[in-house]
Amino acid sequence: MNAPASLRQFTKPLPVAFLEALRSKFGDRVSTAAAVREHHGRDESPFAPTPPDAVVFAQSTDDVVALVRLCAEHRVPLIPYGVGSSLEGHLLAIEGGVSVDLSQMNRVLAVNAEDLTATVQAGVTRKQLNTEIKDTGLFFPIDPGADATLGGMAATRASGTNAVRYGTMRENVLNLTVVTAEGKVIRTARRAKKSSAGYDLTRVFVGSEGTLGVITEVTLKLYPQPEAISAAICNFPTVGDAVRATIQTIQMGIPIARCELLDAVGVKAVNAYSKLSLRESPLLLFEFHGSTSNVREQAEAVQEVAREHHGMDFEWATQAEERNRLWQARHNAYFAVLQLKAGSRALSTDACVPISRLAECIEQTQADLKDSWIISSVIGHVGDGNFHVEMLVDPNSASDLEEAERLNRRIVERAIALQGTCTGEHGVGLHKMDFLRIEHGDDALDLMARIKRAFDPLNILNPGKVVRA
Amino acid sequence: MNAPASLRQFTKPLPVAFLEALRSKFGDRVSTAAAVREHHGRDESPFAPTPPDAVVFAQSTDDVVALVRLCAEHRVPLIPYGVGSSLEGHLLAIEGGVSVDLSQMNRVLAVNAEDLTATVQAGVTRKQLNTEIKDTGLFFPIDPGADATLGGMAATRASGTNAVRYGTMRENVLNLTVVTAEGKVIRTARRAKKSSAGYDLTRVFVGSEGTLGVITEVTLKLYPQPEAISAAICNFPTVGDAVRATIQTIQMGIPIARCELLDAVGVKAVNAYSKLSLRESPLLLFEFHGSTSNVREQAEAVQEVAREHHGMDFEWATQAEERNRLWQARHNAYFAVLQLKAGSRALSTDACVPISRLAECIEQTQADLKDSWIISSVIGHVGDGNFHVEMLVDPNSASDLEEAERLNRRIVERAIALQGTCTGEHGVGLHKMDFLRIEHGDDALDLMARIKRAFDPLNILNPGKVVRA
Repeated sequence: MNAPASLRQFTKPLPVAFLEALRSKFGDRVSTAAAVREHHGRDESPFAPTPPDAVVFAQSTDDVVALVRLCAEHRVPLIPYGVGSSLEGHLLAIEGGVSVDLSQMNRVLAVNAEDLTATVQAGVTRKQLNTEIKDTGLFFPIDPGADATLGGMAATRASGTNAVRYGTMRENVLNLTVVTAEGKVIRTARRAKKSSAGYDLTRVFVGSEGTLGVITEVTLKLYPQPEAISAAICNFPTVGDAVRATIQTIQMGIPIARCELLDAVGVKAVNAYSKLSLRESPLLLFEFHGSTSNVREQAEAVQEVAREHHGMDFEWATQAEERNRLWQARHNAYFAVLQLKAGSRALSTDACVPISRLAECIEQTQADLKDSWIISSVIGHVGDGNFHVEMLVDPNSASDLEEAERLNRRIVERAIALQGTCTGEHGVGLHKMDFLRIEHGDDALDLMARIKRAFDPLNILNPGKVVRA
Repeated sequence: MNAPASLRQFTKPLPVAFLEALRSKFGDRVSTAAAVREHHGRDESPFAPTPPDAVVFAQSTDDVVALVRLCAEHRVPLIPYGVGSSLEGHLLAIEGGVSVDLSQMNRVLAVNAEDLTATVQAGVTRKQLNTEIKDTGLFFPIDPGADATLGGMAATRASGTNAVRYGTMRENVLNLTVVTAEGKVIRTARRAKKSSAGYDLTRVFVGSEGTLGVITEVTLKLYPQPEAISAAICNFPTVGDAVRATIQTIQMGIPIARCELLDAVGVKAVNAYSKLSLRESPLLLFEFHGSTSNVREQAEAVQEVAREHHGMDFEWATQAEERNRLWQARHNAYFAVLQLKAGSRALSTDACVPISRLAECIEQTQADLKDSWIISSVIGHVGDGNFHVEMLVDPNSASDLEEAERLNRRIVERAIALQGTCTGEHGVGLHKMDFLRIEHGDDALDLMARIKRAFDPLNILNPGKVVRA
């Protein structure tokens, strides 16, 4: 078996003058070493590594400006890189070019605790931010599992476990500093909580996946740490029961902070990986935030709903340590499931549907999965109508990849038919580009392509991703 | 004294062939009557009426498609019209053309109560929607005061009194049906609560003020009616005290649903207009939503904060009738203040700043106002850092208009210096276009202009507003 082929579409090398200019400007912060390039040419998707021709480690917005200008001058593609935790091939250098690694731009620039905002460089990770602001009594809730950079999270419109209460990056980015395709530095907004001042450039860049500009700074909303936090596990006989309990909870407007589904396969994997002894049937993992009495009220209401749907008694985790262990296990579920089959890579679906359609969507998906040889687990941010099927594939097996893609396509088409989306939070990257046309239609996609051409007329910013220019 | 001049920039009449095609397509739903045109050429701003050449009453998305195609063919400007409640000259036909009145597109198309969403035609007003969905136990919170159309509210990124808890139209629009400048019909998204599927076209159109496309349908988030609602008035010795109490409330993360400021002039005007007997000193008008115990908890916490800032005892309005009367009075404050000087029009500022800067921003503004002859009142959605100064001008007095503009300019420049915005919720229209450049800078404004040119290459959609193409 051969390793899967790189997705590089042509192999024009970097212009010599460009490489010389890079080296003269960035010195040893330019690398063309194979290992460094390889590291920057892959993400968590099952796509084959597709390395850039060079990697530049930026340390400032000015660095990015200089780099973008050189790339524009020499027509060289440029791909922003955070920690490489994306899932849809966003980072692959399919047209070669330079990966700009922003991980050294890792300073928290300002914490405006009295305004509940913080401004960070794009390479700051969500955990780093939360560690640095801990003493302010505030926190940043958005939590996609991976310790992603906040620039990357903005670029992919990430969300995760807390979104059911706190929203996604769409709702939580106040302002971005962006280097445009011409190497201009703009700020998309100011620090006011709301504004009607012109087109919403912030939201244009949130979710643009490096194709419209390079995000170098992010101003985020923060939230007061809740007075009380409580987490609970509730097992159900079937995934359908768990989902129906979720739907009713949401419809009642109970402001749960987290509501995560694991199917039995996922629970088994998590038990093995994180050395837990959770009951191995489908479960919901809840978290409640609020005042002490409010948390109690929410929990009682949800318990009642769960009982109506055959849920077992809640098992509580009220101590921070116990809770963290549980959530760490949930966040590691992706890696836990990966361990179920040695040497495998995961292809993860990301359907998101209106909550009323979630039960049928997941149950029909389970029927599909039952008929396939692919090992898989259904894991989901079900409070938002969003779930992932993590499918394990041998990256060297064409039939595994084909079968996983077939299942993914069925899931996407079903989600779209149910008025949902092909991607709730992972983004488009390379992998969802064709689905985007089914989801939005030709004319809406044409408007997206117009934005791309208007912002990046030379098509140097992460070319070949999201929409075809 | 002459009436102020229309702002029409040139007077090319409508092409005869265009007018004939309009009449053939729309029959008696086309009007060129002076009174109808005049009605569609003014909003609540002090700008002189600047009528379109014709008004078309659309009844369907297909009508809008046919109209846009005719306008494109004949290069005729097209201005969407809801109820004319905008405040910045958005509707003025400064280049002539056709006003498309969407008020007959007033059907609620779908209420998906189980998903907490509703889809409406653009001409449905917020009050109509809330009346029609009353029995579902849900409500739509966004409330700009005027009974605006939901299409208009989306187009101006409106918010209002409830935004402090429920967000603005930015957060509450899930999907739009839009007719593009070429007469194509697109949907910007689907009904899933979240999505990372490509560029955020929904947010591109929310706040685009009719310059990028004509919004014909809107899918909105709904919320369960709270179990308990309670409103209270708290008087303060000074506006500064009231604002400092607000700031502390927000910083503590108390999830108040409304927090509105009226200064003493505003209270007096409201008393006279709405026949109330509120104590005539600055006041905050709070509303709390939640479970019964949660509402009590919030109210107790806010009372304590208010006392620290010299607030008097809360006066409660727990009965729905009493509460509605109070909120109706608040919503009529704009008209109440207008009555303070017969024959006047209002110029309303709309600064919004980070909450920590709100007290200094308002206090410095008050000092400006004290030195001016213009009668004014400070009214605000202070929980969001947003406040309006309603300034009364004689529309025939050049010196009044000039002085009000001078004050407005000072307020905007101060807000921007404090990292705020020139418009929190009213939008840009004609009136804020120059401020947009100060707020965003040339390069960001250039990106906005690129979006405009990409979406509307013929510049027929509400030309001359928001950004210069």
